Amino acid sequence: MPQTVNVHLLPSLTTRQQLAGKTVVVIDVLRASTTIVHALAAGALDIVPCLEVDEAREIARHSELPTVLGGEREGLKIEGFDFGNSPLEYVPENVAGKRIVFTTTNGTRALLQCRLARRVVIGAFVNFSTVCSSVSGEPAIDLLCAGTSKEISHEDVLLAGAIAEQLQQTKGTDAVLNDQALLAVGAWRSIQEGRTGPGGLANALAISRGARNLLAIGQQRDIEIAARTDQFEIVPELDLEPWKIRAAIDRGG
Amino acid sequence: MPQTVNVHLLPSLTTRQQLAGKTVVVIDVLRASTTIVHALAAGALDIVPCLEVDEAREIARHSELPTVLGGEREGLKIEGFDFGNSPLEYVPENVAGKRIVFTTTNGTRALLQCRLARRVVIGAFVNFSTVCSSVSGEPAIDLLCAGTSKEISHEDVLLAGAIAEQLQQTKGTDAVLNDQALLAVGAWRSIQEGRTGPGGLANALAISRGARNLLAIGQQRDIEIAARTDQFEIVPELDLEPWKIRAAIDRGG
Repeated sequence: MPQTVNVHLLPSLTTRQQLAGKTVVVIDVLRASTTIVHALAAGALDIVPCLEVDEAREIARHSELPTVLGGEREGLKIEGFDFGNSPLEYVPENVAGKRIVFTTTNGTRALLQCRLARRVVIGAFVNFSTVCSSVSGEPAIDLLCAGTSKEISHEDVLLAGAIAEQLQQTKGTDAVLNDQALLAVGAWRSIQEGRTGPGGLANALAISRGARNLLAIGQQRDIEIAARTDQFEIVPELDLEPWKIRAAIDRGG
Repeated sequence: MPQTVNVHLLPSLTTRQQLAGKTVVVIDVLRASTTIVHALAAGALDIVPCLEVDEAREIARHSELPTVLGGEREGLKIEGFDFGNSPLEYVPENVAGKRIVFTTTNGTRALLQCRLARRVVIGAFVNFSTVCSSVSGEPAIDLLCAGTSKEISHEDVLLAGAIAEQLQQTKGTDAVLNDQALLAVGAWRSIQEGRTGPGGLANALAISRGARNLLAIGQQRDIEIAARTDQFEIVPELDLEPWKIRAAIDRGG
């Protein structure tokens, strides 16, 4: 059986039914995916992703574990929350040994699209190689890009392309890519050609609308951090019942 | 004012309101765009695009001009129609001096999304350079990919990338691209690097799902024909009232 690698450039371009029984890599490079990897690397117990701010507050209030509230609206920390959505905030002194109740719109919407999936992992450049090897044995892999405000995000598609290319190189001609995966691989390869200049991946990430939003709120450091490929050997994995993200593999940090 | 170049990878990824007042290039490389250029180059009077087969029959029945019926469902000629959707059928002996009432699902759906646009032209590889120069003076250009069965088509995005890159080269740093345009340009550039092998563009077009559908019905020639960049100097333009496509510039053929 050939391995299928399907990319979905936005959650709205697929359905829960299409993802049912599949292995899904959820991608939100700027910044939820990157921040989740950082948080687990910093020793967070687990992360409970929520779509709504009130829901997050409610879950945190009833938590029996040491718990912090994190997340953003329009890039900024939410009033009364402990932390925003910058990976820089998710360091051991802030989150080690704690549950994080976390709300971001784009990333959480993508996770909710995976309710019927068999396995859901979180992919970022900071855990690129570990994610690739973690899913490479699966017969059908879906790469789900979160996007920004319901629009396709350049940086998410670049990572989807990098993962699809890596899986294709592992499986050779046995990998069957959908058209969106072909596009993602093409976009990724054109970055590899160095056409975006000497700054490499960080420069490529910086030209997206999501990145411009971060620059506008003074969070340019988060873009450089998101571009640190293979900084961690952690694969955050979503448990559907109870709903939380934990580190499936934790050898690095 | 910088020039904005926005790509929409599918009609559903934009709205009529977003396209209101804009200049839109509608792209359906396999095969409606390519076939429309061929038909006008062959001397067709005009082309009336329809979403429904019955609507097409009705319009043809009431036409006061010499009229032929063309189009496809699932790639095949429709029962009782004169021609299918292969550019090879749209030659002078079949269509010169005639109106073509034409129904294809993907391309027509894209055209209907442009009801509020200021100017709508049809782009294909076969009229690539003429389309680019025809729109390059516009302040805001939207490139609308038709897709295949509501899914993103590799070949449409490659052409969108080629046009966006060409406009960017004309305008320099004054061109502002949305994330989908960045992706399209990246995918197009990676094809230019020759990574798809010696067959060039035709090979790149042949790997999409739409192309595999054509191969399955024995229409592989249409893929080679769609890849003949700059064969014509024709820009098909959509008149909204009355609803028809005509050749705005006709210097070649």
